[in-house]
Amino acid sequence: MAKHCYLFGGDRNDGDASMKPLLGGKGANLAEMARLGIPVPPGFTLTTGVCIDTLRLGALPPGIETEVHEALAHIEAHTGRRFGDAERPLLVSVRSGARASMPGMMDTILNLGLNDAIAEGLARASGSGRFAYDAYRRFLAMFSGVVLDLPKEPFDHLLDEPRRRVAEELGLSLRLLNAEQLKQKIPDAMIPEEDLRAVVQRSKELVLRETGKPFPEDPRDQLRAAIQAVFRSWNNDRARTYRAMNRIPDDWGTACTVQAMVFGNLSDASATGVAFTRDPRSGERRFFGEWLPNAQGEDVVAGIRTPLGVTRQDGGDESLEACFPEVFADLERTYKTLERHYRDMLDIEFTIQDGKLYMLQCRVGGRSGRAQVRIAVEMAREGLISREEALLRVEPSKLNELLHPTLDPDAPRKLLATGLPAGPGAASGKIAFDAEAAERLAARGESVILVRRETSPEDIHGMKAASGILTSRGGATSHAAVVARIMGKCCVAGCSALHIDYQTQTLSVTLPRDDGRPGETITLHAGDTITLCVEQTGQVLLGQLPMVPAQTTPEYDELMRWADEVRTLRVRANADKEIEARSARNFGAEGVGLCRTEHMFFEPSRIHLMRRMIVAETIPEREDALASLLPFQRADFLGIFRAMAGLPVTIRLLDPPLHEFLPTDAQQFDQLASLTGLSVPELRRRASARHEANPMLGHRGVRLAITYPEIYRMQARAIFEAAADALAEGLQVHPEIMIPLAIGRPELDHCKQIVDAVAAEVSSTRGLPLPFHYGTMIELPRAALRAGELAGVAEFFSFGTNDLTQTTLGLSRDDSGAFLPAYQEARLLATDPFQTLDTEGVGELIRLACERGRAERPQIKLGICGEHGGDPASIEFCHRIGLHYVSCSPLRVPIARLAAAHAALQARRIDAGEHDAR
Amino acid sequence: MAKHCYLFGGDRNDGDASMKPLLGGKGANLAEMARLGIPVPPGFTLTTGVCIDTLRLGALPPGIETEVHEALAHIEAHTGRRFGDAERPLLVSVRSGARASMPGMMDTILNLGLNDAIAEGLARASGSGRFAYDAYRRFLAMFSGVVLDLPKEPFDHLLDEPRRRVAEELGLSLRLLNAEQLKQKIPDAMIPEEDLRAVVQRSKELVLRETGKPFPEDPRDQLRAAIQAVFRSWNNDRARTYRAMNRIPDDWGTACTVQAMVFGNLSDASATGVAFTRDPRSGERRFFGEWLPNAQGEDVVAGIRTPLGVTRQDGGDESLEACFPEVFADLERTYKTLERHYRDMLDIEFTIQDGKLYMLQCRVGGRSGRAQVRIAVEMAREGLISREEALLRVEPSKLNELLHPTLDPDAPRKLLATGLPAGPGAASGKIAFDAEAAERLAARGESVILVRRETSPEDIHGMKAASGILTSRGGATSHAAVVARIMGKCCVAGCSALHIDYQTQTLSVTLPRDDGRPGETITLHAGDTITLCVEQTGQVLLGQLPMVPAQTTPEYDELMRWADEVRTLRVRANADKEIEARSARNFGAEGVGLCRTEHMFFEPSRIHLMRRMIVAETIPEREDALASLLPFQRADFLGIFRAMAGLPVTIRLLDPPLHEFLPTDAQQFDQLASLTGLSVPELRRRASARHEANPMLGHRGVRLAITYPEIYRMQARAIFEAAADALAEGLQVHPEIMIPLAIGRPELDHCKQIVDAVAAEVSSTRGLPLPFHYGTMIELPRAALRAGELAGVAEFFSFGTNDLTQTTLGLSRDDSGAFLPAYQEARLLATDPFQTLDTEGVGELIRLACERGRAERPQIKLGICGEHGGDPASIEFCHRIGLHYVSCSPLRVPIARLAAAHAALQARRIDAGEHDAR
Repeated sequence: MAKHCYLFGGDRNDGDASMKPLLGGKGANLAEMARLGIPVPPGFTLTTGVCIDTLRLGALPPGIETEVHEALAHIEAHTGRRFGDAERPLLVSVRSGARASMPGMMDTILNLGLNDAIAEGLARASGSGRFAYDAYRRFLAMFSGVVLDLPKEPFDHLLDEPRRRVAEELGLSLRLLNAEQLKQKIPDAMIPEEDLRAVVQRSKELVLRETGKPFPEDPRDQLRAAIQAVFRSWNNDRARTYRAMNRIPDDWGTACTVQAMVFGNLSDASATGVAFTRDPRSGERRFFGEWLPNAQGEDVVAGIRTPLGVTRQDGGDESLEACFPEVFADLERTYKTLERHYRDMLDIEFTIQDGKLYMLQCRVGGRSGRAQVRIAVEMAREGLISREEALLRVEPSKLNELLHPTLDPDAPRKLLATGLPAGPGAASGKIAFDAEAAERLAARGESVILVRRETSPEDIHGMKAASGILTSRGGATSHAAVVARIMGKCCVAGCSALHIDYQTQTLSVTLPRDDGRPGETITLHAGDTITLCVEQTGQVLLGQLPMVPAQTTPEYDELMRWADEVRTLRVRANADKEIEARSARNFGAEGVGLCRTEHMFFEPSRIHLMRRMIVAETIPEREDALASLLPFQRADFLGIFRAMAGLPVTIRLLDPPLHEFLPTDAQQFDQLASLTGLSVPELRRRASARHEANPMLGHRGVRLAITYPEIYRMQARAIFEAAADALAEGLQVHPEIMIPLAIGRPELDHCKQIVDAVAAEVSSTRGLPLPFHYGTMIELPRAALRAGELAGVAEFFSFGTNDLTQTTLGLSRDDSGAFLPAYQEARLLATDPFQTLDTEGVGELIRLACERGRAERPQIKLGICGEHGGDPASIEFCHRIGLHYVSCSPLRVPIARLAAAHAALQARRIDAGEHDAR
Repeated sequence: MAKHCYLFGGDRNDGDASMKPLLGGKGANLAEMARLGIPVPPGFTLTTGVCIDTLRLGALPPGIETEVHEALAHIEAHTGRRFGDAERPLLVSVRSGARASMPGMMDTILNLGLNDAIAEGLARASGSGRFAYDAYRRFLAMFSGVVLDLPKEPFDHLLDEPRRRVAEELGLSLRLLNAEQLKQKIPDAMIPEEDLRAVVQRSKELVLRETGKPFPEDPRDQLRAAIQAVFRSWNNDRARTYRAMNRIPDDWGTACTVQAMVFGNLSDASATGVAFTRDPRSGERRFFGEWLPNAQGEDVVAGIRTPLGVTRQDGGDESLEACFPEVFADLERTYKTLERHYRDMLDIEFTIQDGKLYMLQCRVGGRSGRAQVRIAVEMAREGLISREEALLRVEPSKLNELLHPTLDPDAPRKLLATGLPAGPGAASGKIAFDAEAAERLAARGESVILVRRETSPEDIHGMKAASGILTSRGGATSHAAVVARIMGKCCVAGCSALHIDYQTQTLSVTLPRDDGRPGETITLHAGDTITLCVEQTGQVLLGQLPMVPAQTTPEYDELMRWADEVRTLRVRANADKEIEARSARNFGAEGVGLCRTEHMFFEPSRIHLMRRMIVAETIPEREDALASLLPFQRADFLGIFRAMAGLPVTIRLLDPPLHEFLPTDAQQFDQLASLTGLSVPELRRRASARHEANPMLGHRGVRLAITYPEIYRMQARAIFEAAADALAEGLQVHPEIMIPLAIGRPELDHCKQIVDAVAAEVSSTRGLPLPFHYGTMIELPRAALRAGELAGVAEFFSFGTNDLTQTTLGLSRDDSGAFLPAYQEARLLATDPFQTLDTEGVGELIRLACERGRAERPQIKLGICGEHGGDPASIEFCHRIGLHYVSCSPLRVPIARLAAAHAALQARRIDAGEHDAR
């Protein structure tokens, strides 16, 4: 039969830290601390299995109560107090504690075991009636809320009258104080004993009135009900939502820990506090915490009284170190023991009762990304953990905090709306509603936030000028998001609560009230200042907020060196320009995995030529326009080859549908008319002839080369001439020419003829060999399925997972904002497939394509260049299926390097596990 | 060593009809006829292998010439003539002949073996100098064109001067005649011998001037060059295009047949003709052909002289039967022998030289669909072939001709002209005067009538694009007529009253007055609409005319019964309305495979309600609009259940993006405003909020049910209430509810809850059990990959191959027109993937999905409901992978039934073959 009840403290410790699944984090760590000889009030933990059974049965399983009473006897033996005994009363806390931390989600009851007689006994035993009746009235309120499901407010209001009276006695003007201010001025501790006795009486009357039954007098009845209520709270709405968000299984259940109460509010020699064994913001190796004398733990957390620093460094003369030097020395020894034992930075809770220190909780402490890096590296240096452990302790995406400016965590924020966390960091600036305005403002030295419903290639110059980008539509791979990530700009996308009106040049948002109904509407105008902040979500905040600048540290550099030693997956960058390539190389990129040649065409000096090429209706006209684009492309490629000398550069030939380059407004049409000599109506006709119902599935990629081979011919020439120039400079170049959107081998053969012919010609003109690799993007399901035939000619595959996701799931990234949130809410999709690779669908196609490609060409080089190349979970998948590299935006290169190291370490662990199993 | 040269005729026949791969169709059938003792001028065939070697080497392989000379000796022995001998000259024809018929695609040279001395000898031997020099000048022109690659026109123009002189002598006014009319008035046969001698002289001068070399005098040199040229013609542009279109492999090569010439133009006792052993238009069992006395074969085919009927029935007193009764009796015996031997309707060519009949060609005759059915069924009844053979002899798509609408007999017609009834059915469309224009118009979705003086192989692509074909010249066996019949296109040929002017792009006709004198002249321009109607005659009618449905025949009914006995694949129809369902059932549909519920909403009485539903911004508003749509849907479903009583009806819940229903013009917005009480700007805002970048990949299908579950709830209610009504009428109903666009099981679970709840409620209200099946469309690659999990809840899959093709290939059907033609031209795609299933890509996903679905649910029902469900090649694939049914548009149901029978028979043959191989 399974054991249900695990004792800790005193002379018996049934559990330890490894038993979190059974005992929850809290129960397991209490047992572990007790094992270490650290003073912990004795108690016991009912297992998560009991929770599951209780939820199934609707009541505690048979026999449990007996076990509980036996366990209570253990507490009684070690405290010298008795549960339900008025002379030497034992009070207990009843707390939830799940395998994973779910802070504040489930219920807790303190001071359980009181009735009128026992309260009197407690007053006598403690020598303080005030203390005893404060504990009693808190217990009544807490129990009524948690167990009896009564609202909390009526119990709080019972204190209003005494509070007001105390205020009057102090001569405060009640008219000037609202209820909240009154509470601040007259804390609970100022309410005298007789009032608390009255509140206790009224509380019990309230319970009788509301439930029709008297408050349970028998402490054993109280305990049974409290345990059931804690188990029930596993399924409250908050807990369910939290689990859904954090992907915690519903069938884990919570454990329930019953523990002897100790009181930080018993006397002036009592206190309570929380601390971190190292600084959770900076990671600095220093003890850091807060405490309150003569207070209960909840007072520190609730923030009604301002807590004091624990160390003299933080708290000066009011510090615990100064006020209780012996207890502080005890605490110091204890935390050091614990940190050494747990080999991690810990978050601890302690209570001092009449000068004696008790530990109430210890767990691995949450920390900022910056602190993750520093603590991991320093602990490795200290010999506490191995380098591998250090690597695994840093979440790759948390590196963002070192690579981008972040918002000062202490600054008060007025949240206007949230959207997708599309581009990293934080930015403040003045609102501009179009690219031109953004450029104008930026030219005046202003920091600008470009606010658009959605962005298009026309907006690129405005995005460049802006410090941050905000859109009301589109997802994680919308144009705004993709470009922002490449540019390394802060971007909040798809912020659908915003109403953007270009006409009136306003941005308005209706804030929800606490009850969820529409509240205040805020309208901002062009030039007003907002702040974007991308952390877990993308936040839009009112006004300008203080920032912490981006800064990498020596610990960061060391960690990345370790990561590079461990990982086998190469990391390249998506870079379209020399400056991006240089930045990528600084971040550790090992080549360019995707150079999108079209991005080069959007600059004002080139877009005209591109447009001339597109509206051409004869081959000579088109070739003429292409010839004038050639020098630009050549120069761009040369710059990238220089930046990436010695490393491979994968260049994708023109991909987007041509209409993306066409004029959109009258002025642009006029310009094009004067450039081409064609009339505006004729140009409009030609432009509209290029309109497509579904451009994503339209005339783009290699399809352009089938109808206009001269385009790829020009691009190939630009690549080979630039390569020849770079070779002439003594540089090593490794161009990889990539054909987009192929669905079968014939297209690749067709384009290879074009590319080979140009290569041969340039090679002979320059008198140099021009080696290169030829390959294709796999971005359509058919390409994945036909990978075998493609590999007949392609020397490499690069998985374009953005488009492959769109086609495999039939999901337009630009349009999915209308329903993907509903999908995630209804839990129909585990993750946003544009952020994290859909391994079951898209991933299977990739796996298939790798298999088939390798079967045909064992040496084929395999990589991924979609947005997923910078996503840690997706990188793990890439490692697992044996890709050679991932490619991502320059700023995500460090994240990818660390994620690749994680993937390698995890794979090693799995291999080791398999080995052990043999 | 392989044999290169196969003799036929006389006493040696090396080949037979089974040797088409080696000898080509022509060579093999000549050998077969000779074996049967049928008079065939002797000759020999060089194999297709020699062609391939010649093309590779650039010259005839060594030793071939020796074999050719030995074979020539065989011809000489059996004709008593000698090649190159002036006294008893032997002339030969040199013809191409591939394994598959490629009519007119490759080159032919007649009368080879002439020089000045031999021409004199031929004149003496034949007793006709005119004949000899006409043969000589034709040979010079033909050889110069084919072998020396000189343009044809300068040789033609050499006849202009003599022609004009003859015309003057006849007193014709030259000013009134253009060159073309002159040619009609003064055919070659009217040009006297001395002029022909002069033309011969000038032809030789022309060759010397253009090539710098004299015309080859030595007949052996001529023969060698001619054989090489015939082989070379395998790779001319026309032939390559034809092969690409008809998927004939490039490496087959052509054979080359050299045969003694016989002359239908030698005397008045000579003639030439072509005939079919049964009527190729109706299939009627009667001999049917055309002939010309004193003419060469090319005169019949070229359509310069209008040929006469062969039988008295067709040709009256001018028939071959009447003019040469003995020869006709010979011909009759011969064709009957051949038909019995070949067990098929044959297309034969014959020449009568001085009263003696020679067969020059025999092959299985092309025929209309109507004729295919009748001939197949009658031959089966006659015991010539089995029922299985009969089934396989009818191309499923040819049934179109029996199913095609014809012109409404009651509609008033404005007859412009009549011509030969060359291709079946009726067609209206816009006039295009060349193939390119026809393609352009068709690409814009227009129906086109291609209007040509005559057609040539260059026009094939335009004929394909056109709905109908009209020519002013040529007979029932002219190029236009033959090709149109094969394509199953409506065609009126030889409509000589029409004057077609390519220059001015006009078609004009002078209508006869009642008294027979010329009346009104009507001139039509490119883009004007006409109607063709082929009944007893071919009519050309002004404007667009109403059509009536097609009519089937007793032979058709019998054939379809045989098909139904053989096939195992069920055939259902895509039908959205009762009338379509009834029509489908009449065509033999065994249920509805796809009822698209949205089509019901487009009717004017409903679209308003639909729009009100769409612009609703609260659930009650939307539910209110849906409630008013419910009675319409219920009535629609009831109608379909009645039409399909006893058969399954698959109903797809709402699929298209909602914006497809929204107003497009100001008037519609005004209407909607008055209906909803919302302002037009507000409605425009709500409409524009629904705009999507890629609607194909957008908010549609099951995604609508995730955001607006009330829509599917209403539809489920309509289905179940209609089912209950039908049951109450005593009908059997088998509703199958189909969820579109799912990508995983969670969506199906989500919708099943909705559907089940409504079913339970209606069932309980009506007090009836309401059994139904629940399933999904597989139309996205992810759905195919996740078929295993889908089958956990889906009881059936229906493959939506239209969308599956679009997403698997990343190819928008609406936009692919811009580049798919270029793909097909460059041979990058074997077929249009929207017409014939891409078995390598889309097909693999279907196969995978079937496997995975069956593994999870062995009894899962599998069908296909995309356009491919009516395409024979795709149906074969569906049978092969074991689908249970295909579903197609009602008119294609018979085609699908026959194609399913073909698939079953082919599978049996393959199985039998495998069995034999064991």
